[in-house]
Amino acid sequence: MKIALDAMGGDHAPMEIVRGAIDAAQELGVHIILVGDQDRIMKEMDGNDVGGLVSVVHAPEVVRMDEHPVSAVRKKKNSSIVVATQLVKEGAADAVVSAGSTGAQMASSLFILGRIAGVERPAISTLLPTMEGVVALLDVGANVDCKPQHLKQFAIMGSLYAEKILGLPSPRVGLLNIGAEETKGDELTLASYKILKESDINFTGNIEGRDIFLGGSDVVVCDGFVGNVVLKSAEGLALSLMGMFKQELGRLEDIIGRERMVHIMSSLKRRLDYAEYGGAPLLGVNGVSVISHGSSRARAIRNAVRVAKETVEQGLVQAIKEKLETESSKGVTD
Amino acid sequence: MKIALDAMGGDHAPMEIVRGAIDAAQELGVHIILVGDQDRIMKEMDGNDVGGLVSVVHAPEVVRMDEHPVSAVRKKKNSSIVVATQLVKEGAADAVVSAGSTGAQMASSLFILGRIAGVERPAISTLLPTMEGVVALLDVGANVDCKPQHLKQFAIMGSLYAEKILGLPSPRVGLLNIGAEETKGDELTLASYKILKESDINFTGNIEGRDIFLGGSDVVVCDGFVGNVVLKSAEGLALSLMGMFKQELGRLEDIIGRERMVHIMSSLKRRLDYAEYGGAPLLGVNGVSVISHGSSRARAIRNAVRVAKETVEQGLVQAIKEKLETESSKGVTD
Repeated sequence: MKIALDAMGGDHAPMEIVRGAIDAAQELGVHIILVGDQDRIMKEMDGNDVGGLVSVVHAPEVVRMDEHPVSAVRKKKNSSIVVATQLVKEGAADAVVSAGSTGAQMASSLFILGRIAGVERPAISTLLPTMEGVVALLDVGANVDCKPQHLKQFAIMGSLYAEKILGLPSPRVGLLNIGAEETKGDELTLASYKILKESDINFTGNIEGRDIFLGGSDVVVCDGFVGNVVLKSAEGLALSLMGMFKQELGRLEDIIGRERMVHIMSSLKRRLDYAEYGGAPLLGVNGVSVISHGSSRARAIRNAVRVAKETVEQGLVQAIKEKLETESSKGVTD
Repeated sequence: MKIALDAMGGDHAPMEIVRGAIDAAQELGVHIILVGDQDRIMKEMDGNDVGGLVSVVHAPEVVRMDEHPVSAVRKKKNSSIVVATQLVKEGAADAVVSAGSTGAQMASSLFILGRIAGVERPAISTLLPTMEGVVALLDVGANVDCKPQHLKQFAIMGSLYAEKILGLPSPRVGLLNIGAEETKGDELTLASYKILKESDINFTGNIEGRDIFLGGSDVVVCDGFVGNVVLKSAEGLALSLMGMFKQELGRLEDIIGRERMVHIMSSLKRRLDYAEYGGAPLLGVNGVSVISHGSSRARAIRNAVRVAKETVEQGLVQAIKEKLETESSKGVTD
């Protein structure tokens, strides 16, 4: 298996990306194609190509975080994200992974790989830690102003993702709402409830914000605006809590107590750390495209490659194709 | 000053409400009118009326949490929330406080006290802890499917709230969005940005979910669906983190370390505890109506009474009236 990795994307590129590539090749046995500035990549590799498992494809341009994603992708045909995605399109790679601009990755995937027939809007699905384990939340930012039909497709794609990647036979799908009752919600959720209830998804009803993290659902669907705000609020709150904890810790005088604390906190931090979950696949595009966090270091990159590998092995794209084709032919998607 | 307190509202009514009333009367020197089932209230009071500062008004009915708020409030004229709100309308009380059904309290406030002229949609404003202190988030559930004009009014009311109750001379108002740039957002936030920028509010631009808890804003405005989901997600995540922390703690073998932990955690918990902040005033109704958390115990009730007292003393309702009248006469509100 070959994974195209955008070596220039992310806050710590190319150094941490190259390190992550080497780790992934060694530990997962996949072939990594590093895409980006050849000289800089070679320098970071320092001769270590993991017995030929890491190779380089030169791409002289980079899409910066502050550029408008769509026009940048259209203009910069030689940017690392465009070239890496092109490799998937041509069959030279099985998947693309990037920690660069999410917008640019989405635009590249849409323009180059295209949407799966029947999919109206691709969605970003992220995993969040809960009391029970993890939950897949989607969409977390690919789409705003969604329609009920979009949420239904998110539910279908999220279910397949949970089935194939998390190994859950019949994932419980909840609709993020402001109350548990069917009569609660805004225009979007009221209408979405009805079509989800009539679908063949294992729809478990409305869930409220607090239920996301307390468990009870395997997949939670919502508009991308709401999902993005929830995801980033959770990040902010976790950071803020850690900060407050440190302040409290600073007031503690004895050293033994402090050592215990630091130990517990790092253990807790690992459970919350996005780097453990690695990457969020862009669901609904015709190929495997995995989005990694902008602040990814080597470990997060290696885990994102692992997600890409599993997504390819489990045939998630094919599964979405088959399911949404059936849906379309039943005339349910319109 | 007299505060009407719904003695039958909340998970721990009437016991904890009565206790909170006694504490509030003692500590804040306000007169509390407990409204509800006279016999049950008298039994809980056990003869302690704080030298006449706590009195009782009988109301035989209760609006339950599972009832439809609007129809319940219309039907149950003798329910504790309706009678308590009526006391404010008649001038027998300066404010109403309840930990019962939020929907029922909103409906009572709207039907009995009415909206302030020029206010299109009253909003619930809640305080959240940040790295810097607190932030007022509104709306957190009174309204869904908001229009830009509603968000502008939330910004005006939230500013006055922060000025009067938090004592901030020129509160920084942020718009909750999925990116910092003016071009980011859904239909609602894109249009709201424009009118907020042109207003005389101290508008500091878009903020993302993570910024809510990291500080930088005094007031954050959003649609009530989004605000409700953010508020409840934060509650859920904090609970889930505490749970994970306890699990980690359970693995710790030495007793000294565990004692230090428990100490720090309770200190941290206090900083996060809604009970410290007490109550969320319903902004935009023609009277003071303070919403307390459904799980309020005595301390939260006392703090909600304190919020009600400050809201009356600072003349927040009058300030909103004056400001929104001016706005209306400028023709800006339509």
